[in-house]
Amino acid sequence: MNKGIFITIEGGEGAGKTTLIQQLSHTMQQRGKTVMTTREPGGIPIAEQIRSVILDRSHTSMDARTEALLYAAARRQHLVEKVMPALADGQVVICDRFVDSSLAYQGHARGLGMDDVWSINRFAIEGAMPQLTIYMDIEPEIGLARIQAAGTREVNRLDLESLAFHERVREGYRMLLEQFPERIVQVDAGKEANVVLEEVILTIDRRFRGFFAADVQ
Amino acid sequence: MNKGIFITIEGGEGAGKTTLIQQLSHTMQQRGKTVMTTREPGGIPIAEQIRSVILDRSHTSMDARTEALLYAAARRQHLVEKVMPALADGQVVICDRFVDSSLAYQGHARGLGMDDVWSINRFAIEGAMPQLTIYMDIEPEIGLARIQAAGTREVNRLDLESLAFHERVREGYRMLLEQFPERIVQVDAGKEANVVLEEVILTIDRRFRGFFAADVQ
Repeated sequence: MNKGIFITIEGGEGAGKTTLIQQLSHTMQQRGKTVMTTREPGGIPIAEQIRSVILDRSHTSMDARTEALLYAAARRQHLVEKVMPALADGQVVICDRFVDSSLAYQGHARGLGMDDVWSINRFAIEGAMPQLTIYMDIEPEIGLARIQAAGTREVNRLDLESLAFHERVREGYRMLLEQFPERIVQVDAGKEANVVLEEVILTIDRRFRGFFAADVQ
Repeated sequence: MNKGIFITIEGGEGAGKTTLIQQLSHTMQQRGKTVMTTREPGGIPIAEQIRSVILDRSHTSMDARTEALLYAAARRQHLVEKVMPALADGQVVICDRFVDSSLAYQGHARGLGMDDVWSINRFAIEGAMPQLTIYMDIEPEIGLARIQAAGTREVNRLDLESLAFHERVREGYRMLLEQFPERIVQVDAGKEANVVLEEVILTIDRRFRGFFAADVQ
């Protein structure tokens, strides 16, 4: 059913995910690929409405497990309405954060337990795992400093968490790398954006045998 | 932490859950017990808002798994904000439908799989299972006929499902009875309401050794 390619990009704050996704999508399109970049809730009305329940500032009493279930619900709807149809159509889907974010942030850093958070995400995605996940590794101090220096986006809730929190997120991602060595590839996000892009292009080309060469002949 | 008693009432449409809960609560209060009766989302703002996402009529594209995750999220918040505090306070909590409804309706009758639906509910309740569940068993034809004849409540979405659907719900409940013989007690809801009440009172008194006798001395 999935003729397309499903790639997710993961990493801590300030790793450069947005830049990489833009450049990667651009490069792929130049090679004649049809690419859809997305990020949950991705404009899907039901997913957007669920996300607005999570972000409602009056909901100070929201339990961490309620929140994790709502993220999983929004993930499911975004997957069914946006990701799956694009994959069925043979497109390359590049998704900014997916299950690994829930596992690293909520499962490990917030302490809900990676196995428990995985159980609800397994229900949500029903086997639709990405074929490849790029983990952009960066020292939390450097990532957070980048965000403040650049001022390219607003500082969000997560940026304001303690450095210890961001260290735990990184630790969570490293546990995932050990658990899924076939699926997750780490890149050093401390390098220049162009160097990172080149490395990711080579990784994709190797993983999907001649992906970038195919249309260049 | 749980000084109270957590009882859930389950069953198909028209089994008489509402009547039983009212009478049971009344009987318990007469014996000096502090009783809280509830039904998700139970007036808890976050749970109510989640439920309104589920019931929004414009959401015709809602996936069955998204819906199951939203029910689990609303369950979690209702449990944390309403059920747990009452139990911690030593009250008797009687809840109209709980995890078994999700397992019988969504897991079995809708075909999502009882194990899968159980996995997300296990995450949601985090061990807070009822000590006793009363399953009110009734022939679906009789239950549905009761609702139409009585006209005491509006016919809802579930009432309008096919008879085959309601048979599957009953089958799901019977699977749960086999799986949890210690927790779930079946009563014949085809009998007169007073007979059902008497049977349930005896069950509770036996289960919680002299529950009804305690304050009568």
